[in-house]
Amino acid sequence: MTHGIDEVARVAGVSTATVSRALRGLPNVSPITRKRVEAVARDLGYVASPSAASLASGRTRTIGLLTPWVNRWFFANVIEGAERSLRAVGFDALLYTFDIAREVPRRPVDPSVLRHRVDGVLVVGLPLTDLEVEALEGLDRPVAFVGTGRDDHLTVRLDDHEAGVQATEHLVGLGHRRVGHVTGTPDEEHSWSPPSGRRQGWSEVLRAAGIEPEAGWEVNGHFDIQGGRTSTHALLDAHPEVTAVFAASDEMAMGAILAARDRGLRVPEDLSVVGIDGHDLGELVGLTTVSQDASGQGSQAARLLLDLIAGRGEPSLVVHPTVLVERASTAAPRA
Amino acid sequence: MTHGIDEVARVAGVSTATVSRALRGLPNVSPITRKRVEAVARDLGYVASPSAASLASGRTRTIGLLTPWVNRWFFANVIEGAERSLRAVGFDALLYTFDIAREVPRRPVDPSVLRHRVDGVLVVGLPLTDLEVEALEGLDRPVAFVGTGRDDHLTVRLDDHEAGVQATEHLVGLGHRRVGHVTGTPDEEHSWSPPSGRRQGWSEVLRAAGIEPEAGWEVNGHFDIQGGRTSTHALLDAHPEVTAVFAASDEMAMGAILAARDRGLRVPEDLSVVGIDGHDLGELVGLTTVSQDASGQGSQAARLLLDLIAGRGEPSLVVHPTVLVERASTAAPRA
Repeated sequence: MTHGIDEVARVAGVSTATVSRALRGLPNVSPITRKRVEAVARDLGYVASPSAASLASGRTRTIGLLTPWVNRWFFANVIEGAERSLRAVGFDALLYTFDIAREVPRRPVDPSVLRHRVDGVLVVGLPLTDLEVEALEGLDRPVAFVGTGRDDHLTVRLDDHEAGVQATEHLVGLGHRRVGHVTGTPDEEHSWSPPSGRRQGWSEVLRAAGIEPEAGWEVNGHFDIQGGRTSTHALLDAHPEVTAVFAASDEMAMGAILAARDRGLRVPEDLSVVGIDGHDLGELVGLTTVSQDASGQGSQAARLLLDLIAGRGEPSLVVHPTVLVERASTAAPRA
Repeated sequence: MTHGIDEVARVAGVSTATVSRALRGLPNVSPITRKRVEAVARDLGYVASPSAASLASGRTRTIGLLTPWVNRWFFANVIEGAERSLRAVGFDALLYTFDIAREVPRRPVDPSVLRHRVDGVLVVGLPLTDLEVEALEGLDRPVAFVGTGRDDHLTVRLDDHEAGVQATEHLVGLGHRRVGHVTGTPDEEHSWSPPSGRRQGWSEVLRAAGIEPEAGWEVNGHFDIQGGRTSTHALLDAHPEVTAVFAASDEMAMGAILAARDRGLRVPEDLSVVGIDGHDLGELVGLTTVSQDASGQGSQAARLLLDLIAGRGEPSLVVHPTVLVERASTAAPRA
């Protein structure tokens, strides 16, 4: 619910003219009064006429939201959480998608479309090159990352390495030794991207158990159901000895279960499958997973970004916990 | 991929100064040249410096996207499709969510936050009051609806009545006579909202088969998994004679399957379940559904809205087909 300028003036104890001047960055308002009016306006969700406000002060009350997809579980839920935090203080989200296609390189992030239009940028699950990060920094607006990001920026994410360890230790603990890995797209090779960390956790746990993962045990599932299905078929065609699959997302894990069914394999008797996410439908599917709170990460990242925009706080790294949820898709391998 | 002003000038066969003047609505450009430059710029995805362009011509190259949720199947896929169409011509989407909460009325749509910020409005699955529609019309920008909408506006949607008929005829054809219905939220009572049409299809098919639906056979599932689960429990507590459930969305249908499991009922032997949507995970779950192309509806609505913004076409009603997909969640009732 938004409130009018009268309410802001009443709560801040000033005239409506002062509210207007303060929020538009006009002179003849003391810094203390300006801060108080801004705080009250934010608390009440009051939005000054946006075009006038943005012209006068450079404030747009808008966040640029960059993401590869809006219709996959992690991304949809991060966006939902972020949008809820933004809405609470009268901020809008300007949405930019960068589809990570299978065949062609994705289009580069072009910060010029964001200039003068946003007060900050939220990058959701999109691995950027160093050049792209530098270009975003050139906007001179705070930049925050969710799900992927670097230590030198505000980042809210998992410990992806630990998530990969949890999933793989679960399988090795059940007695599996030939564990395949369904990961993301081939171009996500930055050291700070989720697939890298999850893959590293997988291979380290196998090696610690005295198992050297074969090159062919790792396949690309493109982070969707169909990709998980296709790549699991390729994995099992080449490596029928594999008894368990660790997929880097629940949607790819669900694709792996479909592939098993296609081949007449029973899950978990013939093939164990574990994912990462905690997808809403995981319970129905009976999927063992390493769960995360995607909506909470989005909501928190947006709040921290709003703090930076308001000049409060420092860029920090917030690591959300992950929890192994055991369900019916994993069991000991057949003797 | 966006192109520079040089490329637009080259393809249109004019100087870069003319491109700039044409796209900013400045004088001394003939209408024919202006149209050609606009067409080339759109084809090439060229975006003039947005703040300058919007100041001079009122063009923002931005669509306001109003939706109740971003993290449910239908909405996420409509938004993905719309965003893809917008992106192809260099338009952005400004996202506004209006959570339809269980207990409290949702906040009203406030068009003042859109004024001067958007060239058009896309309303995705959000049932608006007549007053809200009038308020949006007051922006003097084209308004389009997806999933819900009225005959006097650009609307891309299903025949919800027919979808309800398809689902219920499938169940009645299998021999079910006591068919429960899991529908949306109590406040979605507009005659043009999807739950109304789907419910009407359900009750008409039952009556045509000589069955008078009891008041308690209809429960509110709030269009999510948990709502579908809770309301199916309530339905079966009060009406254990029900042998089949028609849910107005796949997510509510998946909740109904979870409720059946909670109660030790087998699907479909003890309870048949059919949904509407064609959710990506329907195959894995084995869910019978009346499927629709949500992404295609979003993409088409955005293209038609862009046409209206460009002064082409008239507001029209586009009705997308629905197809019954039979899977393992429906069968004849037990004798």
